[in-house]
Amino acid sequence: MSKLIAIVAGVGPGTGAAVARRFATAYPVVLLSRNASSFNFLVDEINGNGGKAIGIPTDVSDAASVKNAIDSIHKEFGADVAAAAAVFNAAGGFIRKPFLELTEEEFSRGITVSGKGSFVFSQATLPLLLKGVDAGSKYPPTLIFTGATASLRGSAQLSAFATGEFAKRALAQSLGREFGPKGVHVANAIIDGVIDIEKTKEWLKDAGPDAKIKADAIAEAYWSLHTQHRSALTHEIDIRPFVEKW
Amino acid sequence: MSKLIAIVAGVGPGTGAAVARRFATAYPVVLLSRNASSFNFLVDEINGNGGKAIGIPTDVSDAASVKNAIDSIHKEFGADVAAAAAVFNAAGGFIRKPFLELTEEEFSRGITVSGKGSFVFSQATLPLLLKGVDAGSKYPPTLIFTGATASLRGSAQLSAFATGEFAKRALAQSLGREFGPKGVHVANAIIDGVIDIEKTKEWLKDAGPDAKIKADAIAEAYWSLHTQHRSALTHEIDIRPFVEKW
Amino acid sequence: MSKLIAIVAGVGPGTGAAVARRFATAYPVVLLSRNASSFNFLVDEINGNGGKAIGIPTDVSDAASVKNAIDSIHKEFGADVAAAAAVFNAAGGFIRKPFLELTEEEFSRGITVSGKGSFVFSQATLPLLLKGVDAGSKYPPTLIFTGATASLRGSAQLSAFATGEFAKRALAQSLGREFGPKGVHVANAIIDGVIDIEKTKEWLKDAGPDAKIKADAIAEAYWSLHTQHRSALTHEIDIRPFVEKW
Amino acid sequence: MSKLIAIVAGVGPGTGAAVARRFATAYPVVLLSRNASSFNFLVDEINGNGGKAIGIPTDVSDAASVKNAIDSIHKEFGADVAAAAAVFNAAGGFIRKPFLELTEEEFSRGITVSGKGSFVFSQATLPLLLKGVDAGSKYPPTLIFTGATASLRGSAQLSAFATGEFAKRALAQSLGREFGPKGVHVANAIIDGVIDIEKTKEWLKDAGPDAKIKADAIAEAYWSLHTQHRSALTHEIDIRPFVEKW
Repeated sequence: MSKLIAIVAGVGPGTGAAVARRFATAYPVVLLSRNASSFNFLVDEINGNGGKAIGIPTDVSDAASVKNAIDSIHKEFGADVAAAAAVFNAAGGFIRKPFLELTEEEFSRGITVSGKGSFVFSQATLPLLLKGVDAGSKYPPTLIFTGATASLRGSAQLSAFATGEFAKRALAQSLGREFGPKGVHVANAIIDGVIDIEKTKEWLKDAGPDAKIKADAIAEAYWSLHTQHRSALTHEIDIRPFVEKW
Repeated sequence: MSKLIAIVAGVGPGTGAAVARRFATAYPVVLLSRNASSFNFLVDEINGNGGKAIGIPTDVSDAASVKNAIDSIHKEFGADVAAAAAVFNAAGGFIRKPFLELTEEEFSRGITVSGKGSFVFSQATLPLLLKGVDAGSKYPPTLIFTGATASLRGSAQLSAFATGEFAKRALAQSLGREFGPKGVHVANAIIDGVIDIEKTKEWLKDAGPDAKIKADAIAEAYWSLHTQHRSALTHEIDIRPFVEKW
Repeated sequence: MSKLIAIVAGVGPGTGAAVARRFATAYPVVLLSRNASSFNFLVDEINGNGGKAIGIPTDVSDAASVKNAIDSIHKEFGADVAAAAAVFNAAGGFIRKPFLELTEEEFSRGITVSGKGSFVFSQATLPLLLKGVDAGSKYPPTLIFTGATASLRGSAQLSAFATGEFAKRALAQSLGREFGPKGVHVANAIIDGVIDIEKTKEWLKDAGPDAKIKADAIAEAYWSLHTQHRSALTHEIDIRPFVEKW
Repeated sequence: MSKLIAIVAGVGPGTGAAVARRFATAYPVVLLSRNASSFNFLVDEINGNGGKAIGIPTDVSDAASVKNAIDSIHKEFGADVAAAAAVFNAAGGFIRKPFLELTEEEFSRGITVSGKGSFVFSQATLPLLLKGVDAGSKYPPTLIFTGATASLRGSAQLSAFATGEFAKRALAQSLGREFGPKGVHVANAIIDGVIDIEKTKEWLKDAGPDAKIKADAIAEAYWSLHTQHRSALTHEIDIRPFVEKW
């Protein structure tokens, strides 16, 4: 029987790491990030805790780079490796500035990373997820996209980010409708708030405890999505702190 | 410390019973349904399995009837009883017929049961849920509404149902925004498919296995909502079988 | 050939009056409002300007009252009267207060006026609109509902209003899908801002000119909807001042 | 006073041509299309009918090409030319095929033309539209995007198209929120149906008359948007034939 793994793209100190830790309790995990420095600490941590993790430096918006990552996965886990989960946690273009001052390069980051990146990642991982269906994965193999408030709303001065996030959501819906009947669970998460990480330590200090989202709680929500019965799949969830205005 | 209970309104053979069973693994449960015959079997089952359940015949769209139910709850569990969860699983007006043939009584069922009923139920249970916050409930006390495809879409010949379901969703959003910051988790579930119960045994027979939603899987999703960390609450989820067109 | 009229329910000093004036340039108009004092000035004005208007005191949430209005219309315009347009401009439940302080009566105003009222009005006017199709109305006979921001969003402390407005929108969608193919154009307008009327004179004074919606501009938008070709009908529009945050 | 012009990008035989004709009744029009053969007939027609039109071969997804078009506009109409309207009617990626068979180039057409193209076009025309505000344009200078059903829904096997259309809609919202308060009216049209043109002559033959959208009716809707009062602007409209299922 195929070995089932989980693949997490966009591993940094927040959501990606938490998701990797959560899924590592059940599957070997593959961590993709542009720089090895983003995942090395985590690879060591998971392997040190009795789990199994490898990291592969990858640019998810570059098809050749992602293809190379898949080759490395096959080398590591064998030709018949299958995926129980693939999580696309990358995003591009979070730039807030007057529209007329945006450069083409700045604008393009959103549709390149969030848009084309999610396409490239999906094309590379769906064959492994479909193998997971055939391999009798206990839970429907799951492809999860991390989105944002900007997946639903194009705010002023945020067009670079919103265009990419909208595009990613369109892809998630399209894949959900095509691959759901083939047994792959595709889900989209709208993260509506600030993640509680080192970088955001000074943010929202007056908002009281738990005003920033715990990355572990997002990971738990993704795990809940993953373990849903195929007769009762959720395509989209929103996640926000209890004090958030929305 | 207050005793924490779970209250489920609209207990029939499907979602309501499954939700009651799931929450009974953690809390005493109170089952509300118009007729005792809808919950008697379940009260016996839960009590027989080492859980604790009581049933109270209640018309959730009638404020006096719901007030009476709350009185019975206080009598049973004491004046300082608090709620960890309240689930509104009732709906009215599922009638498909040409609009010009609808009677006023038929049309009104949706806005009466799904609309006014969810208001009456929420006003009765929110004080208990707020007490649950004060009582230090492990998980944010949770008010969950069961909705339907018709919560998002007004289909032809289904106005009686859709008006009630839209109204219920409006209430859920309004309560989520008012009571979230007070510590109560309000969530709305869009059930998009046929529930797999005795009544639907002959439906979708050609659609293959798991084409109808397992009520237990809905209950598990509600439990996942209930156990979310307050920094990462989901307001709305959709639930549908993997083969469902949407 | 049948006489084509326009019927406007909910005629006050703002949108209703402006819509009546605009449609009176093409059709005899019937004005419905609870109190004759709401429409008397307008009936005089329109008749004085060479148009034709009658007013009928009507409670749009009361089927008997609306039936009586239809009888009066037949008496005035003949048994074969048909409608080119019917506009439901009534709403109930605009009450902002903590949810737990809402009385059942206060809560019910929204679903009664906006919800049941739009049902009653639609059942009474759709037969006249369908006659308008048969009578060869130049433009598709049009049923327009006036909605609000709260048709799309349940804000904190506004549940009484939002539940009614959501219900009205559900009805509009359902009727659009059932009666569009029969030749009746059903449209829903989301008015997202403050109307510029006597009552709101002191509001938004610092927001600059045109920060409040001109009722005549809404009327013009409704007229644009009415005159759309049946191959290109709009079901929903939003309307807001250029400075409005959304 | 500045000369006010209208600019239409994506001029073919359908919507683009109809919009150009409609706006040519009020303004000199500039037609942008990749190939001159797409607009030559129309330039001749408009100029022959007493209007004023020029065509400029332009690739709207290429910033240099669009910059060149703007230079040509300045050469033709003078340095102080301003725009009363700019319509982005281009789209890319209408490809229906299994997701795993999509090439990267095929997938990218949507986000390149509909996404980056709408960005490039907007950055080039907004300065002219803002000049139109200063120049006292009778109607708020208007930037209109033509979208599709796929702007709202990611259907199976249509991800290339939907990602671009979603991105375009995100941009429209972002620009509406940033430039509305500056006096520019930004609107997004969801065209939900088949346009009635030579290419679609054989489509929907059994659906009866007017089952395909008349391009002139879309143009009329765009004109209605353009002439809205700034206190009552519509951001999004849907347009579909009366018989369309939705």
